[in-house]
Amino acid sequence: MIEQRVLDAVSAERLHDLLDNLARFGPGERGGMNRQALSEEDFQARAWLIDKARQLGCQVWTDGCANLFIRREGREDLPPVMTGSHIDTQPTGGRLDGCYGVMAGMECLYSLEEAGIRTLRPIEVVVWTNEEGSRFSPGAMGSSAYVEPARLEAYRSHRDAAGISLGEALDLHSRRFADLPLRARIDAHAFVELHIEQGPVLEQAGIPLGVVVGIQGVRWYQVVCSGASAHAGTTPMSMRRDAMLLAIETVQRIDALANLIAGDEKRLTFGRWNVSPNVINTIANEATFSIDFRHADPAVLAAFDDGIAACLPADAQLQRLFSHASTEFCPAVVAVLEQACDATGLQRLSIRSGAFHDAMYLAGHCPTGMLFVPSRDGISHNPLEFTEPAQLEAGTRALAWALVSLAEQP
Amino acid sequence: MIEQRVLDAVSAERLHDLLDNLARFGPGERGGMNRQALSEEDFQARAWLIDKARQLGCQVWTDGCANLFIRREGREDLPPVMTGSHIDTQPTGGRLDGCYGVMAGMECLYSLEEAGIRTLRPIEVVVWTNEEGSRFSPGAMGSSAYVEPARLEAYRSHRDAAGISLGEALDLHSRRFADLPLRARIDAHAFVELHIEQGPVLEQAGIPLGVVVGIQGVRWYQVVCSGASAHAGTTPMSMRRDAMLLAIETVQRIDALANLIAGDEKRLTFGRWNVSPNVINTIANEATFSIDFRHADPAVLAAFDDGIAACLPADAQLQRLFSHASTEFCPAVVAVLEQACDATGLQRLSIRSGAFHDAMYLAGHCPTGMLFVPSRDGISHNPLEFTEPAQLEAGTRALAWALVSLAEQP
Repeated sequence: MIEQRVLDAVSAERLHDLLDNLARFGPGERGGMNRQALSEEDFQARAWLIDKARQLGCQVWTDGCANLFIRREGREDLPPVMTGSHIDTQPTGGRLDGCYGVMAGMECLYSLEEAGIRTLRPIEVVVWTNEEGSRFSPGAMGSSAYVEPARLEAYRSHRDAAGISLGEALDLHSRRFADLPLRARIDAHAFVELHIEQGPVLEQAGIPLGVVVGIQGVRWYQVVCSGASAHAGTTPMSMRRDAMLLAIETVQRIDALANLIAGDEKRLTFGRWNVSPNVINTIANEATFSIDFRHADPAVLAAFDDGIAACLPADAQLQRLFSHASTEFCPAVVAVLEQACDATGLQRLSIRSGAFHDAMYLAGHCPTGMLFVPSRDGISHNPLEFTEPAQLEAGTRALAWALVSLAEQP
Repeated sequence: MIEQRVLDAVSAERLHDLLDNLARFGPGERGGMNRQALSEEDFQARAWLIDKARQLGCQVWTDGCANLFIRREGREDLPPVMTGSHIDTQPTGGRLDGCYGVMAGMECLYSLEEAGIRTLRPIEVVVWTNEEGSRFSPGAMGSSAYVEPARLEAYRSHRDAAGISLGEALDLHSRRFADLPLRARIDAHAFVELHIEQGPVLEQAGIPLGVVVGIQGVRWYQVVCSGASAHAGTTPMSMRRDAMLLAIETVQRIDALANLIAGDEKRLTFGRWNVSPNVINTIANEATFSIDFRHADPAVLAAFDDGIAACLPADAQLQRLFSHASTEFCPAVVAVLEQACDATGLQRLSIRSGAFHDAMYLAGHCPTGMLFVPSRDGISHNPLEFTEPAQLEAGTRALAWALVSLAEQP
């Protein structure tokens, strides 16, 4: 089987060389990365990558959102199999989040060359712009605008912390890479994204490969609890309206709701807090907190939306910040990814992603799936982000198998 | 009785004129005050007050901490009866906190003049420096240093937010008021402080006068709960160490402890919070909160100190920030203040102060007591601070009665 020949051609040395080379652009704190989308560091990384791609005989395009498409032609001009991820990082990010998926895709192209195999369908490695959302909000802009090009016009006015708009940054990219041809959205046969898990599940299970069945839906809310600021010494408890105590009670009711509707599957986080006036000897007159609730089942997400208002006391206001439906990946792609993992001879786990990925948007465009490798201690968005080299290699081998298998589908 | 003659001589018009005049120095936001200790505004207010005092034939001294002593001589050179409070304010303070006690004291001197009465003992109106603690920490520095002069040397090195030391500010005061003679601590027959309640008790009881029996003791702690920062989407609940949830559980155990040992008398506030990294989709790795616990009974304060460690989980650290014993005022002074209130013909309530006052330190030096008038909605440290004019007058009438009564004691 040619899938196995390409899998066997994957070189751990070449993969780590690619990752090391990419990490030269935008070194960050404590050995981590800081490569913001469309920054000079990003441009340098792109220039290096385009050069590599052309050396491999690939054609390279960009589009209106600066997504990068590196195409290895197939035997026929059919809709391609796409793979890839992103190369922008968090301000104190690691070397693997996003980058791993792109470099593993490149390594698959090298392996195809080395194995002397030309697939039926073209294979494209894609770099999606601004997945992290740390420079321009929201994240996954590139894949979102690719799937729904009408979104780009609004995105162009979004500004970074320095006041530079996405439009200005994209125009800079156009001038910098004036030789890159533009290409509009094309039909794709499939999209596969390889990524680090960014969570502890694979590591704790002791399993090196995860086949992702979907991405949890998410609800972001903000709750503002109002009280009355008063002196901590002079105000008897019965005469208080302590906004922070109100917030704590509200958190507990929301937690009970989530337990009721989601049980052990609950993922509920109260991550952001703001207490006012935030003084030791003054009762809080306002306490604001965020809710991040995720679940795979649209019915559970809807039940959360329906139930949350009843958790709030009279002196609280609810604001819906963001919501995204859950994503189910294509069963046929998932099946290929399972076979690909089996072809490595290693164990695989069926897993659901709690984090967003570009694959979330691509799933609305073409048959899509994802592969995960473990994250040590579940850590990402951090210089300590780490995956065992052997696991990075195993993920790339599975990816190679899957890409070839999909690219041979008529 | 001469007490009643002086009480009857109290002029609401003169009192409000004094308060209005003082409020010219350091106007703040929304009709409130911002007169920081030893600021130019404070100096101008002092100059105006010294001028008033001298017009009244009083002698004026200062001391090493810029406390101001305005003395109306008695028939004999006995230890004086002192009254007073402070004229510094919070940055967004009101017109009454502290200022009322000083202006009411001045009005008593006017009333004595008008009634043509010279008391046996001298009566002194005192302005204590930096009671609020908003410019230099800690608060009630002036009264603290007066009672325990050895403290001043350490205080002199404390700096405000602009880096100016108390010592430099005091030296500026010395140069500005070079004509004021210095006076060391003297024996006092009694100290009485009239103040707004800064709480809701009198207002809610519908009673215009409060005789303060003491000041609650206080414990300030800080608790740092540690967890592990992780992705809100990718980390199953069972694998989390959410510092904020840990903090909420800890708050509830501390609340239960306070209920157990203090019951309805509990005054417990978790006013200051800091959550890190404070991001919607990241589990908190650290949550820090403050505890303000107050009680009149030293045994209850000790039980809180003894019990708090057992409320903390393993991943929490406790830091003791501040503590002050409870204060019991002198029963003989309290009895005089009760008679004084009765002399106004109005109702009085026995009350315990939850806020600190200069009287807390003076109680360690001489027989001491306090009178409260109501605070509308319990509000202070706020431009909305307000007491009905008739209540301000009633408090001053009671003060006048009490000062004369104490000053006639042999």
